[in-house]
Amino acid sequence: MQDEPKRSDLPEDEQAPSADIPEAEQATPEPAEEEDEFVPSRELIDQIREAIDEEDPARLDELLEPMHAADIADVIENLSAARRRTFMSLWSGEIDGDILSEIDESIRDEIVELMPKSALADAVREMDSDDIVELIEELDEPEQQKVLDALDESDRAAVEQSLTYPEYSAGRMMQSEVVTAPEHWTVGETIDYLRNEDEHLPDQFYHVILVDPRRHPVGYVALGRLLSARRATPMRDITEDSFRPIDAFANEADVAYAFNQYHLISTPVVDEHDRLVGVITIDDAMEVLDDEHEEDILRLAGVGDESSISDTVVETLWQRLPWLGVNLATAILASFVIAMFEATISQIVALAVLMPIVASMGGNAGTQTLTVAVRALATKSLTGSNVWRVVAREAVVGVLNGLCFAVVMGVVAWIWFDGINLAGVIAIAMVVNLFVAALAGILVPLTLERVGADPALASGTFVTTVTDVVGFFAFLGLAQMVLL
Amino acid sequence: MQDEPKRSDLPEDEQAPSADIPEAEQATPEPAEEEDEFVPSRELIDQIREAIDEEDPARLDELLEPMHAADIADVIENLSAARRRTFMSLWSGEIDGDILSEIDESIRDEIVELMPKSALADAVREMDSDDIVELIEELDEPEQQKVLDALDESDRAAVEQSLTYPEYSAGRMMQSEVVTAPEHWTVGETIDYLRNEDEHLPDQFYHVILVDPRRHPVGYVALGRLLSARRATPMRDITEDSFRPIDAFANEADVAYAFNQYHLISTPVVDEHDRLVGVITIDDAMEVLDDEHEEDILRLAGVGDESSISDTVVETLWQRLPWLGVNLATAILASFVIAMFEATISQIVALAVLMPIVASMGGNAGTQTLTVAVRALATKSLTGSNVWRVVAREAVVGVLNGLCFAVVMGVVAWIWFDGINLAGVIAIAMVVNLFVAALAGILVPLTLERVGADPALASGTFVTTVTDVVGFFAFLGLAQMVLL
Repeated sequence: MQDEPKRSDLPEDEQAPSADIPEAEQATPEPAEEEDEFVPSRELIDQIREAIDEEDPARLDELLEPMHAADIADVIENLSAARRRTFMSLWSGEIDGDILSEIDESIRDEIVELMPKSALADAVREMDSDDIVELIEELDEPEQQKVLDALDESDRAAVEQSLTYPEYSAGRMMQSEVVTAPEHWTVGETIDYLRNEDEHLPDQFYHVILVDPRRHPVGYVALGRLLSARRATPMRDITEDSFRPIDAFANEADVAYAFNQYHLISTPVVDEHDRLVGVITIDDAMEVLDDEHEEDILRLAGVGDESSISDTVVETLWQRLPWLGVNLATAILASFVIAMFEATISQIVALAVLMPIVASMGGNAGTQTLTVAVRALATKSLTGSNVWRVVAREAVVGVLNGLCFAVVMGVVAWIWFDGINLAGVIAIAMVVNLFVAALAGILVPLTLERVGADPALASGTFVTTVTDVVGFFAFLGLAQMVLL
Repeated sequence: MQDEPKRSDLPEDEQAPSADIPEAEQATPEPAEEEDEFVPSRELIDQIREAIDEEDPARLDELLEPMHAADIADVIENLSAARRRTFMSLWSGEIDGDILSEIDESIRDEIVELMPKSALADAVREMDSDDIVELIEELDEPEQQKVLDALDESDRAAVEQSLTYPEYSAGRMMQSEVVTAPEHWTVGETIDYLRNEDEHLPDQFYHVILVDPRRHPVGYVALGRLLSARRATPMRDITEDSFRPIDAFANEADVAYAFNQYHLISTPVVDEHDRLVGVITIDDAMEVLDDEHEEDILRLAGVGDESSISDTVVETLWQRLPWLGVNLATAILASFVIAMFEATISQIVALAVLMPIVASMGGNAGTQTLTVAVRALATKSLTGSNVWRVVAREAVVGVLNGLCFAVVMGVVAWIWFDGINLAGVIAIAMVVNLFVAALAGILVPLTLERVGADPALASGTFVTTVTDVVGFFAFLGLAQMVLL
């Protein structure tokens, strides 16, 4: 390997000598991400904008033609609203199923509305039923009808069946296009069948599902096994261990968890009579996993979980205001606690200087515990069987953290304000608040989970309210008792 | 569909009458998650603990035998350290490759150390090279050597090659077991070859990669297409559009992004000479995506990103202390600002009551913006081409938020403390701080990204430091000017 040139665009038979290439140069490849290779380049995007501004559809075609559908969708999302409108008048006829299914929810209505009927019909005709369902469920009524009208009979039936399942269920994630074989078939029979069905097979499939005469799935065979087995082998003999059909009513987050936990690639979906109604593939599960994470992280920060980088000012404002409003209410609550000690503060102003430190440390420690707890709940690693051990651990860590920072802060306060009593007060308040922060950080999400709410939702606000109130109360209350 | 019984364990030919089953009961399926179906039940875990405490290996076998490897690994992780030791002395011989590769990093050393050499050799022999690499890279030196010694010649070579690539690179994610075919083969030749190679094929594979004589990948064929095509079809004619080989030095986060963005299932990995060295499959990409999210969310909260629910008190303390220490330093910095205005506060104690509100609102608004920005950077939707539009949007939203809460807080302060000037001061401070919060929330992560740091790391602390300092300074400074 060492004696081959780095560039491989030499003619195949020309083995260039390499003794003059220094060793170090060979060992260090160019870093892969100097220019981020997975994102359309800045220049390309500028050229696309130019083509739009010059209303030049031919140029637009030429620029977009080599791009992947997902990247084209990203480009469309990132256009300003005015440019997007021009873009659609120039290019809407070219939007195919692949692009359409990649378009972000926030602008789907707009895009579908602007697409000519015939282009929409062409686009949806190439889409698998799960992608159509995903497209449709976020649309407003008139655009929804427009898409349904564009479908042919059998697709519409499949989509409408999917839509009978609750939102965020496996039934909504699945595609109804499945590849099945009777359970008694051999490998040879199955392969012959697949060759004849070529036209009607889904774009991507990874297993052949074996069904009994009542269409109950009884096992599945990976295509790799199917290809490598002898023709006479009964399909039943080469099924995979990982087979686990999923209830169409199962929650999509649980489905994503199962894919991740059990390394599934595709899995059959069954209705309430245990009959096969569809199949979920890993790319859909990966998308759900991604969405769930996004939701957790945004909710923890108190941002509407539908937020996207292409939102307008008004949409953004609307997502942020409610949580800031809640935060204002809780901040005022904490102020009431401070107001209870106005007389004390007016005598010892040092208290006003130091009190935000106690509150801030509590808020931070609480958020740490909270985040770990929310993640552990989301990954199902915080369960009934270890919950008390984890709560106890957090409480102990809270006290130990408190002791550490009590010492540090005690010394700081002592030096700064030259008061041993003040130092003692802040030290004790620190231990109390960090202990309470740990308990709040773990018990708030656990309680939310127990009552069936999302543990990420609003729990940050609950926790910091607790740590602010307790922090101010412990510090100022102790100060009033000890220092006056 | 309506006239079939709900339970499907009746003999196949026995169509039970169903007129007496009320319609409602048929229409409402049992909710799928009453007992969480994807997590081992509480009772099962209690039984496993009992079997360990009674040192009963036969009972342990019986309980664990039907469980999925991933669930067994979870059970092992959640045992207390003492019980885990007993468990290993009873059952370590039974730990196979599937279980071993699912064991969390935090206890891998312990498990590998306690496994008898022969069991370890058996376990690693069934593992694909990517799983062995993943196992090995987190182990301490002696356990690493123990695993390498257990491998046979060819596996060891593959693993050692993988380890020459940098940590977190595609080279570390890939498995070296690949299924290739010469580019000029037909479908029939490929299928015959696969049938003969049955023994040597990887457990799971989804594409046959076409290579030229110098082992450069030139395309790939999905197994579904291979199965449904005629035997005489040239492989070249049925390759997939999605083909995009990945550089072995590419960052794993970029690889995960590519899988998610382009709906890949598996993708070839090439070395610096563009030669095929391995393949990455979607389950590994999904794991990386999961880890990246976890890292983001934990870093945003200032928790060490290696943290896990099975950590001990000491490990947990160690992860949390550094960030709390940083927070203490920044909180003290903010206190210095307050201390500058001690004289003012001692005259108007209301300032001490109200100042945490200004700081808190700034911190929250900043965290909202920050979280959205960090997510957008992680998903590559905040790029050079839209960055100024997003910064401008955040700034405008910051000012508008500020105006809203300026009005609310002005009224509250006016009523509470009966001072129109105080109301004016807090209103102006609110607008200033929420505007600064928005700018800090977007510019801090952008700057970190630009200098090559992780935008999630420590940016929360930066942002709240800015909002605390600005909040206290604007409010108290204005108060000093206006009210005294």
